Amino acid sequence: MTHSDELLSPAAFEAAFRTIGAERYHSHHPFHHLLHTGKLNKGQVQAWALNRYVYQAHIPLKDAALMSRAHDPVLRREWIHRLTDHDGDEAGDEGGIARWLRLTDALGLARDDVTSMRLAHPGTIFAVEAYVRFVRERSLIEAVASSLTELFAPTIIADRVSGMLANYDFISREALAYFGKRMTQAPRDSTFALKWVIAHCRTRAEQELALDALRFKCGVLWSQLDALYIAYVAPGIIPPGAFRPDAA
Amino acid sequence: MTHSDELLSPAAFEAAFRTIGAERYHSHHPFHHLLHTGKLNKGQVQAWALNRYVYQAHIPLKDAALMSRAHDPVLRREWIHRLTDHDGDEAGDEGGIARWLRLTDALGLARDDVTSMRLAHPGTIFAVEAYVRFVRERSLIEAVASSLTELFAPTIIADRVSGMLANYDFISREALAYFGKRMTQAPRDSTFALKWVIAHCRTRAEQELALDALRFKCGVLWSQLDALYIAYVAPGIIPPGAFRPDAA
Repeated sequence: MTHSDELLSPAAFEAAFRTIGAERYHSHHPFHHLLHTGKLNKGQVQAWALNRYVYQAHIPLKDAALMSRAHDPVLRREWIHRLTDHDGDEAGDEGGIARWLRLTDALGLARDDVTSMRLAHPGTIFAVEAYVRFVRERSLIEAVASSLTELFAPTIIADRVSGMLANYDFISREALAYFGKRMTQAPRDSTFALKWVIAHCRTRAEQELALDALRFKCGVLWSQLDALYIAYVAPGIIPPGAFRPDAA
Repeated sequence: MTHSDELLSPAAFEAAFRTIGAERYHSHHPFHHLLHTGKLNKGQVQAWALNRYVYQAHIPLKDAALMSRAHDPVLRREWIHRLTDHDGDEAGDEGGIARWLRLTDALGLARDDVTSMRLAHPGTIFAVEAYVRFVRERSLIEAVASSLTELFAPTIIADRVSGMLANYDFISREALAYFGKRMTQAPRDSTFALKWVIAHCRTRAEQELALDALRFKCGVLWSQLDALYIAYVAPGIIPPGAFRPDAA
């Protein structure tokens, strides 16, 4: 992309991130509209939860990959929360992955079908692995910036929880415990990450790489919903070996 | 190396690790004998502390790299202690890196000369980077097994602390706080890692890879002392740009 060489002000840089979210965040994907407004059947919600588990399970690997490249102990000491948020800790937090499995349990999915990831859509796996690889291989600024989709998470989560509770009799508040936690974790994490990226981009070129990283990450999330839509909504082309709902 | 295809029993496998340590651990390096018996001058101890900082500073990156490849949350939840041990935590532990800097402070080294790593011996840097790369690229079993030098750490640490306190008037117990912590951390970590490696090697070939990983790691530690010996003991060839002690 072409751009001037002038450094964006912190406010303009933040606004540019928010514009990307407004345009590209997966809240705009038709699958989410169907999910939140009660237009999916249980099998389709199962497919969503089963595939999204692949994403959840890889987030700690992604965050550890970021930390493996972060020479600043201050950054590592902040980032480590993300690992305990997902994996739990000895103080008794079960962690986000375990909370996600409460949802798949509630949906009647067998644990091993979920955790083995063998029924996941290939499109899910490709997108998730592309994300881990991006964080492992790109610059640290791009790795941190790619987390900034969390800036936009609270709104979609609030819509999701209220919409799913109102519309699906097979979903309880307990089953959605994962999202309750994310309402506080995501803003804490994204506030830190946004400040860090703004403070560490010294050139316009670095700022543009950071913005591209957020565009890339929006694509990672979007692409996962594409896979679900194609396989489980329309035209309904389920790849051989992928999850097949029992019934509607 | 040639070997039978027969799986080693847990006891024989553990004994094989301990034999490698007995033969190859850097406790046998002449530099350590000089260090612990008071035969080094302050400048040589400075060179040791400054170069060893490079190793300390990379350990959390190595551990995060390992976690970025560990799909098992149980392994990650155990391994994460290593990050907080080195980086500190919000509960108030300053962490091992900060404790190492107390030693370099006590030795009169400027913080930036240490943390910038620009005065480190190239041999130190190559060995440390080889270790991080090994953990990033080899199998998870090899990555975990390469940590098992910690099985042999308590003895060398006890010798080091008592020997340095007895022999160097420029070293206080406070300056050696790093080692006090490691006396409890290293056994906890190595006990877990040893059990994990024994439980996860399903074939003799995997066991042999794990043993080779420990041999490799012994080489990483040994090689760092070689660099110190050549530059600061005999023949005293200090690479251009590397740390030069002011005086003896």
